[in-house]
Amino acid sequence: MKTILKPYKNTDDCSYTSGAYATIELVQAKPEQARAVYIHPDYAEPERILSLCAQRRIPAARDENAFRRLGQKENCYVLGVFKKYECRLARDRPHIVLVNPADMGNLGTIIRTMAGLGYGDLAVVTPAADIWHPKTVRASMGALFRVRFCPFVTFDAYRAAYPNHALFPFMPGGALELRSGNRPKAELYALIFGNEASGLGPDFFTIGTSVSIPQPGPVDSFNLAVAAAIGMYAFSM
Amino acid sequence: MKTILKPYKNTDDCSYTSGAYATIELVQAKPEQARAVYIHPDYAEPERILSLCAQRRIPAARDENAFRRLGQKENCYVLGVFKKYECRLARDRPHIVLVNPADMGNLGTIIRTMAGLGYGDLAVVTPAADIWHPKTVRASMGALFRVRFCPFVTFDAYRAAYPNHALFPFMPGGALELRSGNRPKAELYALIFGNEASGLGPDFFTIGTSVSIPQPGPVDSFNLAVAAAIGMYAFSM
Repeated sequence: MKTILKPYKNTDDCSYTSGAYATIELVQAKPEQARAVYIHPDYAEPERILSLCAQRRIPAARDENAFRRLGQKENCYVLGVFKKYECRLARDRPHIVLVNPADMGNLGTIIRTMAGLGYGDLAVVTPAADIWHPKTVRASMGALFRVRFCPFVTFDAYRAAYPNHALFPFMPGGALELRSGNRPKAELYALIFGNEASGLGPDFFTIGTSVSIPQPGPVDSFNLAVAAAIGMYAFSM
Repeated sequence: MKTILKPYKNTDDCSYTSGAYATIELVQAKPEQARAVYIHPDYAEPERILSLCAQRRIPAARDENAFRRLGQKENCYVLGVFKKYECRLARDRPHIVLVNPADMGNLGTIIRTMAGLGYGDLAVVTPAADIWHPKTVRASMGALFRVRFCPFVTFDAYRAAYPNHALFPFMPGGALELRSGNRPKAELYALIFGNEASGLGPDFFTIGTSVSIPQPGPVDSFNLAVAAAIGMYAFSM
């Protein structure tokens, strides 16, 4: 166990999970990427994690120093170090497309919601929040390891790679007001959401079918993770 | 303008909004509670806020020192100081009930979603995250000022005050799997959500109609703000 732990930088080859739940997701869903697991001596029930790591030949140790070195604010008793990896999106499954998401908490929460609702494929148009950052991984509760994701430098680059998905950009004033029972019946579709502050540009009105979530109340927008959750739920149920 | 600004404490009579959007919500929706508005000299377009304040006789000043004193991390160019107040819930409107919500970001996001979807009444069973904390206000984007809310020391105290709402506790394994088109048709209802870590206790299976959000994916729970958003959307559309 000679892994040197340092505060994460986005240029690193590795990142880490913090917390038992996300670390167990790493160990179960992406064991081949896990490099080491550290358990704080104060963690009460290390047996399950140690056993899961042993089965998968992942080095695991009870080591207080590992936690100090990362200098985290939040209490955290389990850490998993993993190597970053590449994915490809499935061609025959619905996609979620996030255009320039800026907030790691939102990005992680959307990934968690995807995994809960059975969406397995995420395209991220850059620049975007770092999907590998421990904060994103934490907000996803480790669901990052259950989802395929791929960065694209532009929306057009995504579209060129996956030309067959019916496109549904979510934007205020969208042509289709999404209500119970009126969701489009496309089998193969991409739900597209814009940046927290600026949304999707007006160009997106000209592709596919623009969608809006009815807002009878006095407030004019939803949090990005909330809009994505409502959209994913409405299209999948 | 002699208001002394200090970092917020939950025992204070006043709290504050940070950011132009939330401050404008305060000034427009609860002008009688606003005590002062501060605008950073670097803020580019102060005219609208100054004019809104002048119309409502709310003292407003461009003052750099106010921002330093609060010691905020995030960039913020507009601050509104407001006095805390009491509300009563409407008896004839649907309610959202949060039992022991712990995270200020979730609480604020839920309030923002309520305002967007047209829910105006929130019961909070304590202990709970501080609804007045600037972080909660910020996550709500000022929607706090559009919603009536009331604390209750127990769920039973809420129930005694509002005995006529049909109760729908959201919990894994709930009797009703919420899908498009099968939402209960109650006019007067309360949607009940538990704590982020522990959810609602098993006692809630015995009241009203327990509800679950189908989760076909491999992840076993949603973020609280996401679950509440899906529930509110499904019941209102």
